[in-house]
Amino acid sequence: MSDQRNPAIILHSPQLGENIGAAARVMRNFGLTDLRLVAPRDGWPNPAADAMSAGAFESGVVVRVFETLPEALEGITWLVAATARLRGIEKRVGDASEAADLAYERLKTGQSAIMFGAEKSGLPNDAVAVSDFLMTYPVDAEFKSLNLAQAVCVFCAEWGKRREQSDLVISQDKAKLGEPAPRDELFRMFEHFEEELERAGYFFPPEKTPLMKDNLRAALIRADWTRQEVQTFRGAIKALALGRGKARVNRDD
Amino acid sequence: MSDQRNPAIILHSPQLGENIGAAARVMRNFGLTDLRLVAPRDGWPNPAADAMSAGAFESGVVVRVFETLPEALEGITWLVAATARLRGIEKRVGDASEAADLAYERLKTGQSAIMFGAEKSGLPNDAVAVSDFLMTYPVDAEFKSLNLAQAVCVFCAEWGKRREQSDLVISQDKAKLGEPAPRDELFRMFEHFEEELERAGYFFPPEKTPLMKDNLRAALIRADWTRQEVQTFRGAIKALALGRGKARVNRDD
Repeated sequence: MSDQRNPAIILHSPQLGENIGAAARVMRNFGLTDLRLVAPRDGWPNPAADAMSAGAFESGVVVRVFETLPEALEGITWLVAATARLRGIEKRVGDASEAADLAYERLKTGQSAIMFGAEKSGLPNDAVAVSDFLMTYPVDAEFKSLNLAQAVCVFCAEWGKRREQSDLVISQDKAKLGEPAPRDELFRMFEHFEEELERAGYFFPPEKTPLMKDNLRAALIRADWTRQEVQTFRGAIKALALGRGKARVNRDD
Repeated sequence: MSDQRNPAIILHSPQLGENIGAAARVMRNFGLTDLRLVAPRDGWPNPAADAMSAGAFESGVVVRVFETLPEALEGITWLVAATARLRGIEKRVGDASEAADLAYERLKTGQSAIMFGAEKSGLPNDAVAVSDFLMTYPVDAEFKSLNLAQAVCVFCAEWGKRREQSDLVISQDKAKLGEPAPRDELFRMFEHFEEELERAGYFFPPEKTPLMKDNLRAALIRADWTRQEVQTFRGAIKALALGRGKARVNRDD
């Protein structure tokens, strides 16, 4: 049941099923599956949670319900308390990124959990007291209160980065992106463009021609062209200069 | 109205008011206030959004509603598209952290925006084509679909970190760099280019026209145009289409 590869998420006395479901969804988005509820107000199972979960419970998120926090901490060796208020308790404090880093380290030797309090009141002091680390987010001092599922989301997204470090998802798609255009093809594209502009009388006065060419090249080069795009753009230049299909103009070149 | 110190958030064709409200709340949590809606399905104002916003609209989040994306991009000089799929479009790709870093840099010389698509379908291709950067999150490949407000949350939490580092210093070097072209000027440049290509018979076969336009826009947008360069390029298009000076062609427009 417990997930040895990702931290557990503990929701302490959550009130709204919607938030539990939304939290489960975003956990699953970022690969977390161990969800522990301490004394959920409306009991469990909860239809409102199902509705917001987008299938997370069927896709791997395992929920366990406990009456007290100590029971929920079974197997947990390192506990983070998410809190907006620093309470004068002597604890290590950091943001989601630091919490994720430390949770990552801890998974090598044990199991970590990230704990969030109730929607209105946050975590009770006795829960904060037994945690190893206080996690706090850089929220605006005048509008501090995050939605519970959003608070879970911020940590999970940080966790997703650690998780991804090993197996990069993006890299697989990279091959599908186009091959970068070699510099000589780019130069031919520029020359083609400039020849047509020359013919069209664009470069005037003549002494400004080099500067005008440089300016056009400087803008276009930044686009970091693929070979395919160079072909596309050359086709466009040709069409503008000569027309195509019925709009074709005859010219001796 | 527009926030010069934080990126704008654009929701393109959002469906549920609840998500708009939840997005506004988490924006405000992390200090963002410029929310732009493109064609919200249920119109605006929306009582479901108010209910989920926890007072964000009264606490500084300004909503503006637009019928089309180009209108919503008024004043935006750097645009991020949030997407789960990499679409074979050649764009710079990165995670929320990179997007926040770059958005932070961009605010020194212009205004950036982060754009999210509709709940089910995500962003349309023509919106992705005109973006400068694709932002993708390290989600689990088997459970990819984030709730819209959670997707907004992930970026906003990253932004909150940058915001905290130091209050943004707006660079006085702006003038030296060349002023970035506002998105509406870029759109007019694209439209000008496409109109002339249309007239030249370039777009063939007709059913491929939208794809061909997207490919051209996707390539050109990467060049990160200054206003001056936009003028230069438009001059070049005009010259190619019409000629100039002795090479001038008479046409009835």
